[in-house]
Amino acid sequence: MISYKEATDLIKLHFHPPKKVMSIEIENAVGYILAEDVMADINLPPFDNSSMDGYAIKFNDSITKWKIIGEISAGDNNSFDIDDNSTVLIMTGAKIPNGADTIIPIENVEIDDNCISIKSDCRFQRYDYIRKKGEDLQINSIAIKANTMIQPNHIQLLSACGKRKVTVFRPLKIGLITTGNELVDIDILPKNTKIRATNIYTLHTLIKSNSMIPINYGIIKDDYQEIKSEIIQALESDIDILITTGGVSVGKYDYIKDIFDDICINTIFWGTNIKPGKPIAFGVYNSKGRDKYIFGLPGNPLSCFISFYIFIKPALNHYYDIRAENKFVAILDTPISKNNGKLHFVMGKAIFNRQNKMYTVSSAGNQSSGH
Amino acid sequence: MISYKEATDLIKLHFHPPKKVMSIEIENAVGYILAEDVMADINLPPFDNSSMDGYAIKFNDSITKWKIIGEISAGDNNSFDIDDNSTVLIMTGAKIPNGADTIIPIENVEIDDNCISIKSDCRFQRYDYIRKKGEDLQINSIAIKANTMIQPNHIQLLSACGKRKVTVFRPLKIGLITTGNELVDIDILPKNTKIRATNIYTLHTLIKSNSMIPINYGIIKDDYQEIKSEIIQALESDIDILITTGGVSVGKYDYIKDIFDDICINTIFWGTNIKPGKPIAFGVYNSKGRDKYIFGLPGNPLSCFISFYIFIKPALNHYYDIRAENKFVAILDTPISKNNGKLHFVMGKAIFNRQNKMYTVSSAGNQSSGH
Repeated sequence: MISYKEATDLIKLHFHPPKKVMSIEIENAVGYILAEDVMADINLPPFDNSSMDGYAIKFNDSITKWKIIGEISAGDNNSFDIDDNSTVLIMTGAKIPNGADTIIPIENVEIDDNCISIKSDCRFQRYDYIRKKGEDLQINSIAIKANTMIQPNHIQLLSACGKRKVTVFRPLKIGLITTGNELVDIDILPKNTKIRATNIYTLHTLIKSNSMIPINYGIIKDDYQEIKSEIIQALESDIDILITTGGVSVGKYDYIKDIFDDICINTIFWGTNIKPGKPIAFGVYNSKGRDKYIFGLPGNPLSCFISFYIFIKPALNHYYDIRAENKFVAILDTPISKNNGKLHFVMGKAIFNRQNKMYTVSSAGNQSSGH
Repeated sequence: MISYKEATDLIKLHFHPPKKVMSIEIENAVGYILAEDVMADINLPPFDNSSMDGYAIKFNDSITKWKIIGEISAGDNNSFDIDDNSTVLIMTGAKIPNGADTIIPIENVEIDDNCISIKSDCRFQRYDYIRKKGEDLQINSIAIKANTMIQPNHIQLLSACGKRKVTVFRPLKIGLITTGNELVDIDILPKNTKIRATNIYTLHTLIKSNSMIPINYGIIKDDYQEIKSEIIQALESDIDILITTGGVSVGKYDYIKDIFDDICINTIFWGTNIKPGKPIAFGVYNSKGRDKYIFGLPGNPLSCFISFYIFIKPALNHYYDIRAENKFVAILDTPISKNNGKLHFVMGKAIFNRQNKMYTVSSAGNQSSGH
């Protein structure tokens, strides 16, 4: 059986749905992947301006008094020429008048007879409180690179660059099929030997939370022909990926493997040496020249949940060229043992310990696949 | 001027919009706050079942051979009685037959003449691979407590408890007013002394990302009457919170403070001893018996962005009783100095350092309010 690394390498090698793009308003773009380098279409800031409410002067350390010749607020277009002995009242964000190079904050001046002088306890130097044109970003320089996942902290910059909409990668469409005679929908009280079909809602939510589009094909009984026809229908519809849950192990009604072969899915691998999630399958199906990717996940709830994070999410990150390293060194609080050669994925809780300044990790409890 | 702690304590003391609830499908509930304790309506698992594809036996270490008397798949209702010498083939998730207490995995048995024996190199013990009824969660016990922010990892459990929908707190409606003569909308190329109104898109996105509802009242010129009438209109409409940006400092056209007094907003505080974001205002307005909460944020983009995280987000966490401690000890890579007595909020980048196993934090660059 192949290792986890071999499995994920095989997925990376084969998984490349066509990359399509779309345009989206920035306030709806959080979680989407930028498909363009966003450039500054203007200098930021666009002109030299004041970072304080104050008085604009031409710096000259031999002068102690300036005559107020006017005022400028943010957005004003009125123009003044400042010489050694004159000043204008200037508001935060207003354009620096000609000749001025320094701002004295309002609270640091005394006004007498329409003239300002600087309070004796206030020091200042040339260029104080001047924001220079282009100091944040020069026109035509890259503001945010393609393949960045858009987060709320990007919105100021996108807005400042005039991007009402951005070009992002079109979310992939992911079909979901859940199989199992034991499954009833979750709004039903399960009787006798039935259990609720929890995986479909979990995968639906995980797909949505990753800004992709889930398409639910429902719960199918363990009937070879029914499952086969549902899988074909899904693969021939407009989806990029199909996820099935259940039917991948060695049980008598685990039909997925045979169905893969039956309908000419190219099975890239079947099973990896891990726990939980060992019986995962990955294959490629060609529908009229378009490749579709199939992940056959185990039906056990913990296996299914973890499989999304350890197989599907890394495949998407690789596909979009996103660096998503989210690893850190931590101290395990109690030993975890294993009695097999598998790579184990263990759900844990991490708490930052202020004494030793490291994370302490403890097992999150029962790690049984079915938990 | 009050300290940051005094300011946030005052907000916590006064900020309590009425808590209303609503029902939402679980797959749309990520990011919402649970308003009910979710209880297990059944035992989880609902019956003793097998965690492997295997053979169910009654443990007896003096017996080495068992006759196969049938098979049970997940979801099957057929029943068998197991004695010392009989076994049934049982699939993962299937109900344990009467009398059986141990599962021998398929791969560990040899079959001969419709009887199984256990391979010589395989050890086993009583209760192997049995998942006991209720071992994950007992019926009527609490599965997820109220005031939990729903995340994708809660969906398996919500589904297993039969929650097609959950009761969550109704998202607050937050009005947004941006003021400034210098502002143009972001799809316009700003000329002369104009700049783009970036705050409104950022706040809109931050509000949405926190699963609340932004309501945009647009960009208003620095005109006392216009701003006043827009603020009144917003406060008299169906919103819980109003956020204004700009006009809160000591500049000539900073009208917000006077307008607060003019329209009988109870100003709880004005200004805190921090950087950036010093001139923040917080007030309460009573509209026909219903309190509305007003945050007057500075117009500078960095100040505005940070103010959301340091004032509004903590207010919401306190309001919903969410523990959101997200602090850790780290090493600062280069000194940061300040020349005033303010509490500084500095944007940084944290990178986990594998050598010393700690985060190293560096300044994210220019920390000017207008950046």
